[in-house]
Amino acid sequence: MTLEIEPERVSHTPSDTRRRILDAAVTCFARAGFHGTSMHEICQEARMSPGGLYRYFTSKDAIIEAIAQEERARNARYLSTAHVSENHLQALFDGGLAFLRDMAGTRDAALCAEVCAEAQRNPRIRSIFEQNHHEVRASLLRVIEAAQAAGEVDAELDAGVVVTVLMAIGDGLIVRPPFGPETSIANIEPTLRHLIGRMLSPTKAAPSSNSEPSP
Amino acid sequence: MTLEIEPERVSHTPSDTRRRILDAAVTCFARAGFHGTSMHEICQEARMSPGGLYRYFTSKDAIIEAIAQEERARNARYLSTAHVSENHLQALFDGGLAFLRDMAGTRDAALCAEVCAEAQRNPRIRSIFEQNHHEVRASLLRVIEAAQAAGEVDAELDAGVVVTVLMAIGDGLIVRPPFGPETSIANIEPTLRHLIGRMLSPTKAAPSSNSEPSP
Repeated sequence: MTLEIEPERVSHTPSDTRRRILDAAVTCFARAGFHGTSMHEICQEARMSPGGLYRYFTSKDAIIEAIAQEERARNARYLSTAHVSENHLQALFDGGLAFLRDMAGTRDAALCAEVCAEAQRNPRIRSIFEQNHHEVRASLLRVIEAAQAAGEVDAELDAGVVVTVLMAIGDGLIVRPPFGPETSIANIEPTLRHLIGRMLSPTKAAPSSNSEPSP
Repeated sequence: MTLEIEPERVSHTPSDTRRRILDAAVTCFARAGFHGTSMHEICQEARMSPGGLYRYFTSKDAIIEAIAQEERARNARYLSTAHVSENHLQALFDGGLAFLRDMAGTRDAALCAEVCAEAQRNPRIRSIFEQNHHEVRASLLRVIEAAQAAGEVDAELDAGVVVTVLMAIGDGLIVRPPFGPETSIANIEPTLRHLIGRMLSPTKAAPSSNSEPSP
């Protein structure tokens, strides 16, 4: 083997190398799925020898877990200050839309769909995903409850279901590939803010005959 | 081989056999993904010989396409009468929630996540999925526009973005496995109707400082 395919021998710190492995793995998983990716392919993508890679990660599951931990840290940043900001709902919109813009059409969006699919059949992935799910829920709940206390969100709404619906909108916009301008985040952003504002606003819309009261 | 593993020789019509193959394929795809499933495994699941299966479908892609066509026909049924019903929004809620209830936690939900993941990397699946996407969009748009004309949905809302958000909610609720009572369709249904009613209702909520006008 040449130095060409073992750049980890050159000048990189352990954290550079770890980063390169995780980047390579995300690329492979987005391209071929968890099932369709071997450790060998991750080595090739990272331009490392198997020996080099196994010093950092002993299995594909260990790599997936590390990616999930990074994902968790990244998700937390988008909402980190929303519950203490002056305008909770504005901070929620800004954080949520920044997240959607950053994800849309990237390999991270493809990976998100892959995680959803794999979580339905692989208990280990499901468990890692479930931890992330509960952390994101808890952050969002904290923001919605603070917004309710501040009168920005109707206090009569069930905050837990509001969080479920907001997460569903985010997931739904990420997992389905954009099929046209009417599904591009940039195009829908103003109306999306408006619709969610209507949904949550404390100025109660007169309930139409179609809607049932919140339980 | 015994009759046990070749029941297609016994007494089934071609359409029974076709049905059995598609059912077996959905089971395999939900369990192991498109990539992770071979024609051989579909034969085993359907308890057929390869020769029997290849009389009906010559490739995995042909099976996936047939499943997508069934899916398309099934989706159409949920909304088939909503645009001509007396109360469009009620019909939309009833159809949409029936769809979500029927999907939730089934192998069809797992398959939906799998299709989203695969559509991000496989142009053929993406193209099949995109046809379904545009058909569902067109049905929903017809209902929302009829509801706007009837004064059930605020006529000022951008119907296209409303459809994008409604589809995102549906996708989001389906692709993420249920991780607790607050994500179960049955539990959230009344509040979900209420929230969507608020979002669409013609009784305009006073725009809060957080929401921007629809473009």
